[in-house]
Amino acid sequence: MPPSYPERQRTLGSLLRQPYRALQDRTYAALAQRGFDDLRAAHSAVFRHIRPEGSRVTELAAQAGMTKQSMSYLVDALVRGGYLHIVPDPADGRAKLARLTLRGEQAMAALIELSLEWERRLARRLGAAKVAQLRELLEETIAAVERDGAA
Amino acid sequence: MPPSYPERQRTLGSLLRQPYRALQDRTYAALAQRGFDDLRAAHSAVFRHIRPEGSRVTELAAQAGMTKQSMSYLVDALVRGGYLHIVPDPADGRAKLARLTLRGEQAMAALIELSLEWERRLARRLGAAKVAQLRELLEETIAAVERDGAA
Repeated sequence: MPPSYPERQRTLGSLLRQPYRALQDRTYAALAQRGFDDLRAAHSAVFRHIRPEGSRVTELAAQAGMTKQSMSYLVDALVRGGYLHIVPDPADGRAKLARLTLRGEQAMAALIELSLEWERRLARRLGAAKVAQLRELLEETIAAVERDGAA
Repeated sequence: MPPSYPERQRTLGSLLRQPYRALQDRTYAALAQRGFDDLRAAHSAVFRHIRPEGSRVTELAAQAGMTKQSMSYLVDALVRGGYLHIVPDPADGRAKLARLTLRGEQAMAALIELSLEWERRLARRLGAAKVAQLRELLEETIAAVERDGAA
């Protein structure tokens, strides 16, 4: 499906986004085949940031760069799906933490495994040397962007 | 803020996502300074895919890999912000198209300009040769992923 504003396709942003999106699509499709068919790529915002001891919704929202309302929506869906449960924060009795259930931990483990499998498949297609070079350039890009942000 | 599951930080997915996220954060912050302060990174799902003649919400949802409901939410917000208007589909009188307004076109132009500016800043930090090499490897990755998806 070619976009109508082709100049956007040539931005570095688009080049970074496309393979990441392909990875997510493939990972969540494979996850569904493993029985986690109620998980969507949007939920990765929770899995990516949640701490083993649990995280507050406001904390997850800040880490994911989302509004508290949008994060609450994701967390509620994951609670209904049995991936998260809500527990009192031991550090502050009035606060609540969202925490992975056993099923949530299993989904997380599958997510990591599928992501690494995708990388191995890519290495077979592209060659391990190119994947290593890509990783290195991306690490350098991240470092450069961080220095730039701090400047 | 170091993540508690450090192994996730080493996936290629994470290496692709981090600079893209940094680009988005910077772009939308700069966009706000230009007066587009009601635009969020989430709205890029619309700007990225919308056609000059307008797009159906179902079409935008499919292209962005989102539910129709989530896309409707974004489109409604952009209509309220004056970035989109809803017009009848000339090809099907019962259908509606979301289309960029003049303000929407201005926001789109600013988005593209800021994205290219980010890339030039990165090239100054990293060197033009490395950015060119990164682009090439990402193009190869996208092609490899597409072949893999088709296989």
